Amino acid sequence: MVPSLIVSFIYGDGVHLAFIVTMAALLVLGAVIVALFRRQELNMRPREGFVAVALCWITITIFGALPSYISGAMPSYIDALFESTAGFTTTGATILMSVERLPESIAFWRAFSQWLGGMGVIILTLAILPAGGHGAYNLVRAESTGPASERLVPRLRRSAVTLYIIYIALTLLQTIMLLIGKMSLYDALIHTFATAGTGGFSSRDMSVGAFGSGYIEYTIGAFMVLFSVNFGLYFAAVTRGFGRIRKNTELKVFLCIMVIGAALITMDLMRNTVYESLADTIRRSFFHTASLGSSTAFFTVDYNLWPNFSRIILMCLMLIGGCAGSTASGIKVVRAITLCKSAAREIKRIIHPRAVSVVHINGEPVQEKDLTGVLHYFFIYVLIIILATLLVSLDNLGFETTFTGVFAMITNVGPGFGLAGPAGNYAGFSALSKLVLSATMLVGRLEIFPILMLIIPSTWKRA
Amino acid sequence: MVPSLIVSFIYGDGVHLAFIVTMAALLVLGAVIVALFRRQELNMRPREGFVAVALCWITITIFGALPSYISGAMPSYIDALFESTAGFTTTGATILMSVERLPESIAFWRAFSQWLGGMGVIILTLAILPAGGHGAYNLVRAESTGPASERLVPRLRRSAVTLYIIYIALTLLQTIMLLIGKMSLYDALIHTFATAGTGGFSSRDMSVGAFGSGYIEYTIGAFMVLFSVNFGLYFAAVTRGFGRIRKNTELKVFLCIMVIGAALITMDLMRNTVYESLADTIRRSFFHTASLGSSTAFFTVDYNLWPNFSRIILMCLMLIGGCAGSTASGIKVVRAITLCKSAAREIKRIIHPRAVSVVHINGEPVQEKDLTGVLHYFFIYVLIIILATLLVSLDNLGFETTFTGVFAMITNVGPGFGLAGPAGNYAGFSALSKLVLSATMLVGRLEIFPILMLIIPSTWKRA
Repeated sequence: MVPSLIVSFIYGDGVHLAFIVTMAALLVLGAVIVALFRRQELNMRPREGFVAVALCWITITIFGALPSYISGAMPSYIDALFESTAGFTTTGATILMSVERLPESIAFWRAFSQWLGGMGVIILTLAILPAGGHGAYNLVRAESTGPASERLVPRLRRSAVTLYIIYIALTLLQTIMLLIGKMSLYDALIHTFATAGTGGFSSRDMSVGAFGSGYIEYTIGAFMVLFSVNFGLYFAAVTRGFGRIRKNTELKVFLCIMVIGAALITMDLMRNTVYESLADTIRRSFFHTASLGSSTAFFTVDYNLWPNFSRIILMCLMLIGGCAGSTASGIKVVRAITLCKSAAREIKRIIHPRAVSVVHINGEPVQEKDLTGVLHYFFIYVLIIILATLLVSLDNLGFETTFTGVFAMITNVGPGFGLAGPAGNYAGFSALSKLVLSATMLVGRLEIFPILMLIIPSTWKRA
Repeated sequence: MVPSLIVSFIYGDGVHLAFIVTMAALLVLGAVIVALFRRQELNMRPREGFVAVALCWITITIFGALPSYISGAMPSYIDALFESTAGFTTTGATILMSVERLPESIAFWRAFSQWLGGMGVIILTLAILPAGGHGAYNLVRAESTGPASERLVPRLRRSAVTLYIIYIALTLLQTIMLLIGKMSLYDALIHTFATAGTGGFSSRDMSVGAFGSGYIEYTIGAFMVLFSVNFGLYFAAVTRGFGRIRKNTELKVFLCIMVIGAALITMDLMRNTVYESLADTIRRSFFHTASLGSSTAFFTVDYNLWPNFSRIILMCLMLIGGCAGSTASGIKVVRAITLCKSAAREIKRIIHPRAVSVVHINGEPVQEKDLTGVLHYFFIYVLIIILATLLVSLDNLGFETTFTGVFAMITNVGPGFGLAGPAGNYAGFSALSKLVLSATMLVGRLEIFPILMLIIPSTWKRA
């Protein structure tokens, strides 16, 4: 919260006390926890790792909501909590009618929380504090996006540091490029933080559209794609050359999805003559394909008004999301590939019942238990969408708003369609719905199991 | 088509020639096929069984559309094909503005096609004509609903005959009960055929609501539930007593779903004071829970106007559908149970990584390959919903109409929500969409794989 406090002092927006009080409360809480548990070793089993991460994230969102609430920027604590969760989970959904009326430091904090949540708060802690072994691995595994690799274990802290160095380098690069585009430092930082975390919180009500600059649109568009790529690949490219990247199935498929998505939307928008020039159409198609495909949801036009086909394409992009090990959300490209390859094999088995074949991803064989793991993941994902839609439907806001709202939460995109679209917000939902939607955001960010573990009785039984 | 021809003569509706021409065309086609293939043995492998059933069903819907088209009752052949597919697949979706303007024999044919399609046209053929062995089993497996059992093989023809005897007995019983409720024989037969196949084609624009009788509403409601139960259970009950039924997990879960669904809808309708009396509310909740849960979609009120929560509950019921081995559709209760039990085990494995456990359904262990089969089935089911929604969204009819329309096709329910709701119809969709929706109905009725096999290149390669 220190950077936000500094912003508060620079702009004299008068809410610095809200940050100082929250920081004091967190220091006290931290001191108590350290005093109670300092002699305990960090030697967790998977379920303890999952539960610890879930509790940690819930604590962060609860305290992250305090500055907005204490400062009076968001008079309802439920609203502040929703907004805080939308920040850390990099969802970017808002209950605000206008973002431009916020104190500068609160708007900065919203965007900065997306930067923190994007790469992961626990990974950040591991990069700074000494810890390691299988206990720390079980924490990282629960927080990182996509299926995790055991190979990380022996050099966990070095990996965490490397990831953050790449993250900071890309963040710096984007900030400089936006400054070149004549953005103010304040706007450039906010939009870079929200791009890096693929969150989408802007300092403007018209989002990126407020700047009316093709350069800024293409720059942010390109960085949304860059932040949706597995960070491990950047590391591999730097240390072992670009050959590694070329062999990565997930990256190739992700880029294909972006190109095909943008092309289909361009054709649909031209067919319906939504915009006059082809250049405008291509720019807007590319930007919103990158924006929703990376689960960021910056916008330059109200894509909720686009024809149905384009909107369904956007929903497909939202569902698939970015690459594993990036800051993007959705089910992840690697899981989508796994599902399709596994289904294709299942169909081939009907044709050739005795054939034995192994599914390969990124050139390596996938174990059967990992395949069924992804199949289960997909089923539980859909089940949670259905259950959350059911609870939120009590608000009677119509099928489109309810369903796409929930969908935009679990995919961590933010705006959905209908009343929950980019021109709308989530203010009209009931307190119960806001809590359900907040929980759905956490489920999406932490990839289901940590939050699920919390509410299952057998987690709490002794082994 | 003989019963429909008789109806045409009785009512003198002047369309008998349309049936006679179609019957003649089918006789010629049949004679040609018999002449070409009479010396070939019915010894098919799984893929050939799937392809044969798919081709058979496509042929049936193409020829089944001819009477409506030739008679001029449906001036567009695409419309007649859509209606014919909605008949045989027991979907019950319509492109008609008014059903009451149809010639009597055409309305009768629509309902009778649902009776034929419900239990299965191939199973009917096997019950009448001599055939057997593994070849016939591969046909039955492709046509029957839910996961099929190999144990049927040795007594396939006897099973087919038994199933049809039970089917005819229940059909007779319902007809008599509707006659007691003062329905005309014509209306009673049409509504019984459409109930038995869980199809939902009525002779009235207001569907069952046109009769304004609580007796008729409860009778049809009860039979919709009865026809959603595994017919094998009725056989077991008659031959081996009711003990078998009590042990059947699927039936118990199905009845629980019906009760919980009706109770939740009752509460929601009362909360929103949609109807004045509790008795009316309960009657309507029960009827529409049975109607959409059995994938029939008869209606007495326009449930599209119900509050959102009730509509989402109805969509959940549509998705789950009835029991395997019944005439109902959806993914089937047994698959829903399998998915939930398998997911629960997956979650427990995270807590106790070394625990070994087997999933049991109906008291029997389920093989791992059958579990992953159901998981794949669910994924492909969702994938087809997404792809069909994408194609139909080109019509730009709005998200709710497009999505719920496709959803009502693959679940073989018929009416969706929005413009595709019970008060609307599918006339407003384009010819392309009607073909896509027809294909989706076949995919739903034949449970994906037969239709999928047709379009996969490797099906057509020599082994």
